[in-house]
Amino acid sequence: MSEKVRVGVNGYGVIGKRVADAVRLQPDMELVGVSDVVSDYRIKTAGVLGIPVYSSRDESTAAMTAAGIPVVGGFHGFLDGLDVIVDCTPAGIGAANLPHYREHGVKAVFQGGEKHALTGHSFVAHANFASAVGRDATRVVSCNTTATVRTLTALRDAGLLAKARGVLIRRATDPWESDHSGIMNTIVPEGSIPSHQGPDAQSVIPELDVVTIAAKGSHTQNHSHYWVVELTRPSDRDEVLEAMRAMPRVALIRRSDGIVALNSTIELMKDLGRPRGDMYEVALWEDILKVEGNELYYTYTVDNQAVVIPENIDAIRALAGSVTAGSDSIRLTDDTLGVRQDFLN
Amino acid sequence: MSEKVRVGVNGYGVIGKRVADAVRLQPDMELVGVSDVVSDYRIKTAGVLGIPVYSSRDESTAAMTAAGIPVVGGFHGFLDGLDVIVDCTPAGIGAANLPHYREHGVKAVFQGGEKHALTGHSFVAHANFASAVGRDATRVVSCNTTATVRTLTALRDAGLLAKARGVLIRRATDPWESDHSGIMNTIVPEGSIPSHQGPDAQSVIPELDVVTIAAKGSHTQNHSHYWVVELTRPSDRDEVLEAMRAMPRVALIRRSDGIVALNSTIELMKDLGRPRGDMYEVALWEDILKVEGNELYYTYTVDNQAVVIPENIDAIRALAGSVTAGSDSIRLTDDTLGVRQDFLN
Amino acid sequence: MSEKVRVGVNGYGVIGKRVADAVRLQPDMELVGVSDVVSDYRIKTAGVLGIPVYSSRDESTAAMTAAGIPVVGGFHGFLDGLDVIVDCTPAGIGAANLPHYREHGVKAVFQGGEKHALTGHSFVAHANFASAVGRDATRVVSCNTTATVRTLTALRDAGLLAKARGVLIRRATDPWESDHSGIMNTIVPEGSIPSHQGPDAQSVIPELDVVTIAAKGSHTQNHSHYWVVELTRPSDRDEVLEAMRAMPRVALIRRSDGIVALNSTIELMKDLGRPRGDMYEVALWEDILKVEGNELYYTYTVDNQAVVIPENIDAIRALAGSVTAGSDSIRLTDDTLGVRQDFLN
Amino acid sequence: MSEKVRVGVNGYGVIGKRVADAVRLQPDMELVGVSDVVSDYRIKTAGVLGIPVYSSRDESTAAMTAAGIPVVGGFHGFLDGLDVIVDCTPAGIGAANLPHYREHGVKAVFQGGEKHALTGHSFVAHANFASAVGRDATRVVSCNTTATVRTLTALRDAGLLAKARGVLIRRATDPWESDHSGIMNTIVPEGSIPSHQGPDAQSVIPELDVVTIAAKGSHTQNHSHYWVVELTRPSDRDEVLEAMRAMPRVALIRRSDGIVALNSTIELMKDLGRPRGDMYEVALWEDILKVEGNELYYTYTVDNQAVVIPENIDAIRALAGSVTAGSDSIRLTDDTLGVRQDFLN
Repeated sequence: MSEKVRVGVNGYGVIGKRVADAVRLQPDMELVGVSDVVSDYRIKTAGVLGIPVYSSRDESTAAMTAAGIPVVGGFHGFLDGLDVIVDCTPAGIGAANLPHYREHGVKAVFQGGEKHALTGHSFVAHANFASAVGRDATRVVSCNTTATVRTLTALRDAGLLAKARGVLIRRATDPWESDHSGIMNTIVPEGSIPSHQGPDAQSVIPELDVVTIAAKGSHTQNHSHYWVVELTRPSDRDEVLEAMRAMPRVALIRRSDGIVALNSTIELMKDLGRPRGDMYEVALWEDILKVEGNELYYTYTVDNQAVVIPENIDAIRALAGSVTAGSDSIRLTDDTLGVRQDFLN
Repeated sequence: MSEKVRVGVNGYGVIGKRVADAVRLQPDMELVGVSDVVSDYRIKTAGVLGIPVYSSRDESTAAMTAAGIPVVGGFHGFLDGLDVIVDCTPAGIGAANLPHYREHGVKAVFQGGEKHALTGHSFVAHANFASAVGRDATRVVSCNTTATVRTLTALRDAGLLAKARGVLIRRATDPWESDHSGIMNTIVPEGSIPSHQGPDAQSVIPELDVVTIAAKGSHTQNHSHYWVVELTRPSDRDEVLEAMRAMPRVALIRRSDGIVALNSTIELMKDLGRPRGDMYEVALWEDILKVEGNELYYTYTVDNQAVVIPENIDAIRALAGSVTAGSDSIRLTDDTLGVRQDFLN
Repeated sequence: MSEKVRVGVNGYGVIGKRVADAVRLQPDMELVGVSDVVSDYRIKTAGVLGIPVYSSRDESTAAMTAAGIPVVGGFHGFLDGLDVIVDCTPAGIGAANLPHYREHGVKAVFQGGEKHALTGHSFVAHANFASAVGRDATRVVSCNTTATVRTLTALRDAGLLAKARGVLIRRATDPWESDHSGIMNTIVPEGSIPSHQGPDAQSVIPELDVVTIAAKGSHTQNHSHYWVVELTRPSDRDEVLEAMRAMPRVALIRRSDGIVALNSTIELMKDLGRPRGDMYEVALWEDILKVEGNELYYTYTVDNQAVVIPENIDAIRALAGSVTAGSDSIRLTDDTLGVRQDFLN
Repeated sequence: MSEKVRVGVNGYGVIGKRVADAVRLQPDMELVGVSDVVSDYRIKTAGVLGIPVYSSRDESTAAMTAAGIPVVGGFHGFLDGLDVIVDCTPAGIGAANLPHYREHGVKAVFQGGEKHALTGHSFVAHANFASAVGRDATRVVSCNTTATVRTLTALRDAGLLAKARGVLIRRATDPWESDHSGIMNTIVPEGSIPSHQGPDAQSVIPELDVVTIAAKGSHTQNHSHYWVVELTRPSDRDEVLEAMRAMPRVALIRRSDGIVALNSTIELMKDLGRPRGDMYEVALWEDILKVEGNELYYTYTVDNQAVVIPENIDAIRALAGSVTAGSDSIRLTDDTLGVRQDFLN
């Protein structure tokens, strides 16, 4: 392994392009390049930004070249130059890629669209960085599950969590594809209860008592979660907020600052100069959170496009074994990305 | 009191026009007329339908007449001809009207936008028809609260309800005014937890252990409720569904029939020939409902414009004292409106 | 041919179910039944309404029966009992059905999703009823084209039309399927200019000088058209409005009545008691229309689900030959459907 | 006047914060600070970014300070340190500010919400930079008008423009306020034709023969314009595209690159690393543009939040008189902001 971890990104889509951006900001990583199969503006921008572009599939190379994309090489050559690959291909495609990664001795970070069984390890940095160290592959859980694990882990770490029941109102589609894949003027409840996020959180922390109900709302960005939590004992706002403040990547927001809805945090991120307007943090409303006896209620919003980016960076380090303490990696990631626990103070 | 209850509707808006429609279908009621203060298409249609139109405010009469609305008379003359008035004016206006109703000896049904204290009685037909009989005024609770009370009462009647925690994703605005009063591409959580619907349900049934969390979604029609209920004992789907089937105005729907989202029920109502496409029933997904031990999870959708209409009709009868058994009134109302417990069987 | 025209509807979807409703209102037609291949709520409602349901495809019969749909018979038996079939199957399917219709001697009305060449005749009642009389098949043009032809024909009939350039902002998807087929928070321009509606209008009236530009908007119901028209000579509002008033199925609406947007007309139709809230008319803003010299500008809204329904009814009569004057058929259709030229006066 | 033009921004909203960002990128300007009256996250972010914050109104200072905003000073002190102020206050407020600016000898750039008569000069850089040089005030026209002037000027400069008729589908509201000020699932045509943008374009170039029709669509970002242009003579695509390429701040985009809708350009800007995802250019679809004889049709999209930012920068220079050739200012502005005429090549 070279001094810097040599990282590649397969799939330059919503997650992949953000991972590529983040890797380029890490002092201990080198972005070798990105690979894809498409020929349109999505991958052309990588060229404009000066990122080396590889073809993930021989059949795609000709079309990519014809479209003016400066293709540096093919997939196997790409893999030869890597220590770790972050697979950001569409759900289910990653599974077919794993044998190739293994063949080339490249460690692999997958996304939540793949099944837990693919790697046998599901990752949220604060919860289980240690168990990923040195593995050859892990899976960063989905945006909804990552957010779920963050706040529930905060409560668990404080000895407060008995059981949690959540309603997750998901964004309907990603903005870039909202010209063809949306829903309109409706809400679509998921077809069964519990939705998959609860069991998925248990793939990270098996002992969590968590049930989730999910639905799609008629908006394109950020999820909105609502939690009803039974605490281990009567508590109060101050204690719960203290627990949340102790958790990296959870930021407290306030209606009293005019942050009153999902669009508020989207605007705020742009105002703060975040690249792509990304919010890596779970943004939890401090002044809506309520404790009554041993019951806790809270709501937060999650940038579905960005929340898993810091986890991907940590997962690279864990697999590479270049950093062995989760807290060290988290600190480094959060410093480079500008992650905050309060956006305004 | 004449043989038929002489009913008037004050405020020919979203609720008022539906109440007027429904009153005209009742064999034991006569719609004397409707009153309003506006001069545009909303009230002009009453004229097109042949409904006598009164002016609620002397200052409005000239403009209404100038706009071609055949105004039959003023407010006091209107009240003189009534046994019961259904006040469907905007929230807060009703309170100022009550003294006029009393002065004219007209009993009054208010809507959920008014405070409980205005009449001291909040109404959901199945829950507390009896206590409204002969009163001079009551208040039909809001659409969200009506739906909440219906399904929770079903569980209570079956001896199953210990406590209920609900997340209510409300429609953002009504379709008719969505050209100027909407939200767009966001979700707006209500500013405090619990939201008002829980306490409001307790204004009908004080002993309910219920907490609600509310938010506005980016759609214009139908609310979407998600419940986490602690049962008094372990139960199963069949028992819970039996309890729901025993409750009037709760209809079971199924994803297996292709009814998968809020827009599905809206289309279904039109397909069934419902006037205005109205759904008076709480439409509960039978095949999403889940019981695990003593926990119950379910979701339903509520037509915010229509769900309180049958309650208004029952409330008229209760105040008039013309029917004294709630079940008799409910049956009559539901027959005339075509209320069903299953839309397809 | 029996005394009443025996009509069948193939495809009980957005258009088919409305045609079925309309046929049942005609004194000179009998709805023999509807046929489809699906098994969900969409066709189950036909059963609830008492409409005989046939299976359009032998392979579908078992699933339909298993779903509880009372299937009366198969497709060929269905055709044997018909004089005219209205084919409302998805775009492109109709072409494959035509040989079956011919084999059974059934005349056929197709929809705008099929190509003009399929039948060699494209139909808008006012424009070319006469040329459809006695044919064995025609095609009712699409909602956008029907609306386009109506107002341009009005201008042509008055000797005013030189050339017309239109921008058509279409609804993105139909409400019933907006849980899975929408666009969100964007506008999608059609990929080429002119869009197909201009040439399609010329398939009805070859001499029209018309060019259209189209795009999809982020709303689910009603199209919104904007026209820039060069008149044959300087004119004025009164003359143009007179021309519009002379055209059946064009209704004038006014902002001064509070009708200010697409949602206003949707609400108005419900208020007027229209089945399904349907608007058969092109609703043209009288007080936005502007004439400057020989230039005319106007905008109207079109209920994409309903505007072609009266044309389908007229097309049935034309093919059946039971009425030979277009104006007689239009008058009968419009009377039965309650078509108006002014909704409020 | 100091070596660098000392610039202040009054009103740190959608336009103001972008102007502040842009001023900070100019080598010949210094951002002295921004002033506002609000106390919430919108202005707090200025503090986070290290921008000096002033209070625009004495009555607001206490609340701002109480909210933790480090207020540097009051309005008059702010003005004393400026050469030019960019007034980005809400429409109509600017007019009341002008006397203060004059009193302090500060030149002023206003926005399109103010009337032309306020300054007697309306500004689009390419069209009339020269006539603004040395003036004490000008008004940058609105986003819709700026876009309109850019492409029509391109055609005029090439001697091609006879007359232009445009349909402008505007975004309904800005994203930051879409939690309370939107429209939903509808289109709202403007109440009269012509809409104000045509005459407003003539306030910049009086001889333009332009008529606009406007409406609000159900989306939150970017306008969508559709033009029907009569050329002075028959032309072809190549000539027209050449004219567009000669115009700064018009960028050609292509469906063949996968850029097919408004959301595509929004994603593209984020992909290119644009701050706030801003697009300063009119993005015109090269492969939709059509010429037939002497008629030209085209469509483009405009980032309503960003398109006027380069014009504001140029307007500062024109008033300051620090650059006297418009083309020099435009080149400098475009270099610093990264304005392109093709995003992918």
